[in-house]
Amino acid sequence: MAIAGRPAEAADSVDVLIASPLDAELVDQIAAVDQRLRVHCAPELLPEPRWRSDHVGVPRQLTPDQHDRWTALLADAEVMFDFDWRTPAQTLAQSPRLRWIQATSAGVGTRMEALGLRHSPLVVTTASGVHAGPLAEFALAGILYFARDVPRLIDDRIGRVWRTGPASELAGRHAVIVGAGQIGTRIAELLRALGVSSTGVVRTPRPVTPPYDDVVTGQALSDHLPRADILVVAAPITGQTRAMIGAREIAALPPGALVVNVGRGTTIDEDAMIEALRARRLGGAVLDVTATEPLPAESPLWTLDNVILSPHGAANVQSENAKIVEIFTDNLRRYLGGRPLRNVYDHDAGY
Amino acid sequence: MAIAGRPAEAADSVDVLIASPLDAELVDQIAAVDQRLRVHCAPELLPEPRWRSDHVGVPRQLTPDQHDRWTALLADAEVMFDFDWRTPAQTLAQSPRLRWIQATSAGVGTRMEALGLRHSPLVVTTASGVHAGPLAEFALAGILYFARDVPRLIDDRIGRVWRTGPASELAGRHAVIVGAGQIGTRIAELLRALGVSSTGVVRTPRPVTPPYDDVVTGQALSDHLPRADILVVAAPITGQTRAMIGAREIAALPPGALVVNVGRGTTIDEDAMIEALRARRLGGAVLDVTATEPLPAESPLWTLDNVILSPHGAANVQSENAKIVEIFTDNLRRYLGGRPLRNVYDHDAGY
Repeated sequence: MAIAGRPAEAADSVDVLIASPLDAELVDQIAAVDQRLRVHCAPELLPEPRWRSDHVGVPRQLTPDQHDRWTALLADAEVMFDFDWRTPAQTLAQSPRLRWIQATSAGVGTRMEALGLRHSPLVVTTASGVHAGPLAEFALAGILYFARDVPRLIDDRIGRVWRTGPASELAGRHAVIVGAGQIGTRIAELLRALGVSSTGVVRTPRPVTPPYDDVVTGQALSDHLPRADILVVAAPITGQTRAMIGAREIAALPPGALVVNVGRGTTIDEDAMIEALRARRLGGAVLDVTATEPLPAESPLWTLDNVILSPHGAANVQSENAKIVEIFTDNLRRYLGGRPLRNVYDHDAGY
Repeated sequence: MAIAGRPAEAADSVDVLIASPLDAELVDQIAAVDQRLRVHCAPELLPEPRWRSDHVGVPRQLTPDQHDRWTALLADAEVMFDFDWRTPAQTLAQSPRLRWIQATSAGVGTRMEALGLRHSPLVVTTASGVHAGPLAEFALAGILYFARDVPRLIDDRIGRVWRTGPASELAGRHAVIVGAGQIGTRIAELLRALGVSSTGVVRTPRPVTPPYDDVVTGQALSDHLPRADILVVAAPITGQTRAMIGAREIAALPPGALVVNVGRGTTIDEDAMIEALRARRLGGAVLDVTATEPLPAESPLWTLDNVILSPHGAANVQSENAKIVEIFTDNLRRYLGGRPLRNVYDHDAGY
């Protein structure tokens, strides 16, 4: 969806509210975009970040005076960097002048639904693309860990075994990538550089372009699973992707296949995956997400030695805010210039 | 060193002896190159391979008759695929017609010295390039394992800890690559795709070209170590590279640096490296080679949990022979056509 920038008849200045913790130098970068911007940043009214580029942080107890200041800032904001941390479901009421939110996450679909904003006129741009690099690194770390038999090398070191024999190779294998967006495509690019071909699985048919060797829609998924040495899930959660990888799909994978999930846990039937990992029909799983998060203490996933588990944090790298601010400053220039914004949330598609 | 092909006055047919185990289909590919080739392959006279593309194998006890057959084949050979497995130091005497050996390893320097062939007129072509892919995979598997904190993810899984916090990132780091040949360059290419810059360290000055951001000679190494988040050794062993990375060089690396060795163990002062790994001044080591191989039982390397150790086998992948035969068939065409061969061992340089 293309969205036009700011209307020409709008006021001279634009109030921009920084609504999640941000390094002072990045706030300065935003302010430097254009002199029409009035950037409001009051760290003392925001949650305390637990690390650099933490967008959640420890909620802060505001004094009545601080509460009033934050309310006034929300009331004036035309543009916000991130959603209000306190009462985001009140966004439309508490920020009547608000036209656009630059979110700090790549997928905002679930949140837009939860906040009742899915069908609002509010423009929301996502941080899509920012997480592709870190998530692809994580996916690749896990793929190489299993494909190159690192667990055996570690066991051999501990057991003081100098084992001669062939090494396993990643090159020449094939990947099926569910969700050929920025994250999936970045993974496909890196796999291609390593000599791994890939089939992208998309919602709407589209031409085959590199890094994909093949692009198919979800309907054709089962035809392609038998050659998926690596199955990567990098799709947003939608009606189509929920439970897309069930017991039947997992059974269709070749023996020793790897499953990588950097999308959403509920795309995969977790019980079926666990069973296949236990039986060693799957070679391994590389998971940044699980069906329920945090993962319940009783989940068998904790106990499986062929699982690499990351607490939905593989994209939380310290350089994240700098990359989000790159998108935001570009979008601010577009907004002021009346040009379409990048990464606009599609109210119809829901992502 | 460019080497001309076969002299025009040579006999019509060329006797090619397969001197290490090779799949029948690959032997057929060699024979199909040209009808002038007489390819001799007698698997029953060769060591028994322990796996596909094993070039050492289990030595075979030849009967007197088999011994005579092998001796006759050696006597007739003009071209050999690999060195004689029995008495390679006798090569010049037992194979008087021999002009060229296509070796199956990338580095033949030590072997040529040991066999007394370094200064012989025999042409030897190496398998250089064949191992770049598998070794780069291994290097990358190890780099990502440490850079993305996989050991901590594994500990957290075992301990059922769902830890929120930032993830470590590989992108943005810098690598120094000692030995910018095919293996080092392949590693630099993959690192570049992952957003890691690199300095190549070479013997003879040369222009900076991708994938390197910088190319320097060994004399300048110490200036570059303080920014080497990753130090990769991918050099052949020569007078210059032996003990090149001593205690001083290791101390010059930034805290948490990774050391990767896919070249030769003796390039690094192993005791100094072990000390730095124990003290956790180094973040980890990824080693396909050690100073003494097999690694002695008493080596502390076996006990260090920040070491990935591979028994000099990271390049021994099942697809290896197919790639060596690609080089060999190309070289056979060049040889018959009187054109320079690829991958010629340089008797002067010693590699």
